[in-house]
Amino acid sequence: MGKDKKAVVVGAGLVGALWAVFLAKRGYDVSVFEQRSDMRRAGYAGGRSINLAMSDRGWKAVEQAGIKEKLTQVAIPMYGRMMHSTSGELAFQPYGKDNQAIYSVSRGGLNLELLNIAAEFPNVKFFFDHKCRRFEPSEQAIWFEGPDDSLKKVEAPLIFGVDGAFSAIRNSLQRLPRFNYSQSYLDYGYKELAIPANEDGSHRLEKNALHIWPRGQFMLIGLPNVDGSFTCTLFLPFEGSEAAFDRLDSDQTVLAFFQKYFPDTIPLMPSLLDDFRQNPASALVTVRCNPWHYEDKVLLLGDAAHAIVPFFGQGMNAGFEDCTLLDEMIDTFDEDWGRIAAAFSASRIEDGNAIAELALRNFIEMRDLVADPKFLLRQKIAARLHEKHSDFLPLYSMVTFSNIPYSKALQAADEQNVLFNRILALPDIEQNWESNDQIDVIFQDWKQMHKGV
Amino acid sequence: MGKDKKAVVVGAGLVGALWAVFLAKRGYDVSVFEQRSDMRRAGYAGGRSINLAMSDRGWKAVEQAGIKEKLTQVAIPMYGRMMHSTSGELAFQPYGKDNQAIYSVSRGGLNLELLNIAAEFPNVKFFFDHKCRRFEPSEQAIWFEGPDDSLKKVEAPLIFGVDGAFSAIRNSLQRLPRFNYSQSYLDYGYKELAIPANEDGSHRLEKNALHIWPRGQFMLIGLPNVDGSFTCTLFLPFEGSEAAFDRLDSDQTVLAFFQKYFPDTIPLMPSLLDDFRQNPASALVTVRCNPWHYEDKVLLLGDAAHAIVPFFGQGMNAGFEDCTLLDEMIDTFDEDWGRIAAAFSASRIEDGNAIAELALRNFIEMRDLVADPKFLLRQKIAARLHEKHSDFLPLYSMVTFSNIPYSKALQAADEQNVLFNRILALPDIEQNWESNDQIDVIFQDWKQMHKGV
Repeated sequence: MGKDKKAVVVGAGLVGALWAVFLAKRGYDVSVFEQRSDMRRAGYAGGRSINLAMSDRGWKAVEQAGIKEKLTQVAIPMYGRMMHSTSGELAFQPYGKDNQAIYSVSRGGLNLELLNIAAEFPNVKFFFDHKCRRFEPSEQAIWFEGPDDSLKKVEAPLIFGVDGAFSAIRNSLQRLPRFNYSQSYLDYGYKELAIPANEDGSHRLEKNALHIWPRGQFMLIGLPNVDGSFTCTLFLPFEGSEAAFDRLDSDQTVLAFFQKYFPDTIPLMPSLLDDFRQNPASALVTVRCNPWHYEDKVLLLGDAAHAIVPFFGQGMNAGFEDCTLLDEMIDTFDEDWGRIAAAFSASRIEDGNAIAELALRNFIEMRDLVADPKFLLRQKIAARLHEKHSDFLPLYSMVTFSNIPYSKALQAADEQNVLFNRILALPDIEQNWESNDQIDVIFQDWKQMHKGV
Repeated sequence: MGKDKKAVVVGAGLVGALWAVFLAKRGYDVSVFEQRSDMRRAGYAGGRSINLAMSDRGWKAVEQAGIKEKLTQVAIPMYGRMMHSTSGELAFQPYGKDNQAIYSVSRGGLNLELLNIAAEFPNVKFFFDHKCRRFEPSEQAIWFEGPDDSLKKVEAPLIFGVDGAFSAIRNSLQRLPRFNYSQSYLDYGYKELAIPANEDGSHRLEKNALHIWPRGQFMLIGLPNVDGSFTCTLFLPFEGSEAAFDRLDSDQTVLAFFQKYFPDTIPLMPSLLDDFRQNPASALVTVRCNPWHYEDKVLLLGDAAHAIVPFFGQGMNAGFEDCTLLDEMIDTFDEDWGRIAAAFSASRIEDGNAIAELALRNFIEMRDLVADPKFLLRQKIAARLHEKHSDFLPLYSMVTFSNIPYSKALQAADEQNVLFNRILALPDIEQNWESNDQIDVIFQDWKQMHKGV
């Protein structure tokens, strides 16, 4: 099949567009089908997106695709979390050391850029307004609903299903024997809100930080945009006794809620009530499946294979890393797509499940623990160990500032819990953590037990 | 909506046909759509079914529907398990006490009978050869592919999705926000085989037993039919080093496999090699979802809501119990389908998940533990406790010979493990289990801890 060098990519979102670039660079004739209209003409419909935080795995992929330069221009470094207490006090926690940062990018802006880059290749063709209805294994074909509502059959020897969390390609695979699948929703929803720029175009909050208003069972976050604004996201239970979307059903209740929990944001959000009314409360899903491929014919990538909740900022990064790893396997297995697909599926699913789990855990960290003195102490001790011992990587750094497989990071996280439980049990650790030599003794001992982490 | 008294049932399998009877008796105009042809004319296509074991929950439902008498005629009581060792030795384990039995029925025969009974109601209409493509919430309509391949839209205020493990109705609900779903396959498959009747129509093995050839990692079972034959099922890993379907790829390997593991069956199965070649190795899936309903408009029943593996013989029984419980709720909530659907979903999902778990556990019991002396000792002690203490029900009896909610049975199973771990730790229990008074002391003590189980 490699001989044909023809591929269909279903989905022109972030990962689909990037993967089209990878394929085009390898000389494939690539047809990209997308259900939405061409955002280069139609514009980008906002109102339900969470800003993206690009980190090392994402950068590696765009670098490998040769497009890092262009994307750097639309990204804002965030060097740490800025926590906002209810009384408006600020506290900054760096993400890493030596100016390590994650980068805020707007989903629409990045997608547009990726489409432009892919469209420069003469061997990439786009078909917008084509809604994928299903993949038919018996015909090795995909049925699309075209712009005039007509059904259209596209035969394709090699198909990449990059059509997102609600993938129609995956839905077809789901009907095949022995395809394991799960979709699992949080009881939480999210709503996009906005902090506009100052009149002079400057940012109303510290620009180079990810802002968090942690409130225990819920939270607000804000990420900077290049135009001086912040895209904010409120995460809240759908139903509940007080702090829940179903209770915030009028301007009065919304305002009272913000006055109680986020008073410092009210002067920053002139369109709060309009935004709250107009933007939907969207759901948060985790999708797992196994396998990610069908014979040598279909492969799922990105959210279609592993949609995760956004709390570790790794959804796009994981999808981009799919591209890097898959591209490497094309060489490893000499363009034999049967072996590539099986090997990719067998090795990468474990990582997809691991980042899904880590993302769920990080919700608790962001909405609750970042305001907990014990957790903050742990973070400081982790940073100290990271400074002193080059072989110690805190979990956040492993996920964000390395290319260590997610499954290894998950395993290391569980092992690090053992380490910190021992350290935090030391007498007077709250006072003496900066100078207590026992920390290093415990660390060396723990390292012996878990070599190489 | 109750006023209209119109309902659509999608699926005329066992549970769909029975539920149509319940609705018809309440005066509903019922339209039943089924993708297969009318088996009353076309006959029943065998070759991939496992015989059913009807137990108390099933009988209660058919009794409530007023059709128990008719069904009794096609059911054969099985009073226990008959284990076949490799050397052909037999060992019998009763299922309960006082001639308690489960009843072997053929899927085709039972389905046919249920269709006949439903068809006697003038307010039940059948539409065969109608394949459900999808439910459209925006239209409150179902799209069917009719016998002439044309698409047909059926609007319906009240829809019951009883279309099995691969339910198209559920697949549509799956696309709605916040619908949790999982399908999970075992690495095992099953294949139907046959032991025909003797020439005089008598059974070649003990008629009133469920036969098991337990072999550790795999097993063969056989259930009696009224015509003197047995329907057998081989459960085997799909892939493996020796005992696996992918290794049994020729008459030679199949014969050698049976000679090694099931030598006593070879003279009983004259068509073994033909059956093995012709019948597929089918997959075993567990389906879980939440919720089971959509507003007051759609409700899932039977395998569509909770497909389980067959090892506790509870798939049909659980689906029939859905009908009993749902029918009771129609009275409880005064035919208000919004409240009925929400209450049914909220209370019954826990039971569906519990029987799914118990069925998975029972595979290990059937294929492995029933040949383990320690397990057999435990079973004997459980039977002794059951004889002496009317308030002690072994797990099997709770599931099979009672209407205790499955979730309670699962909880009790875990609690009983604690009891038997203590009893089996008594000195010389292998020798003195019949007379050891400590058993009753431990039991009374345990009962205090878990009152009322």
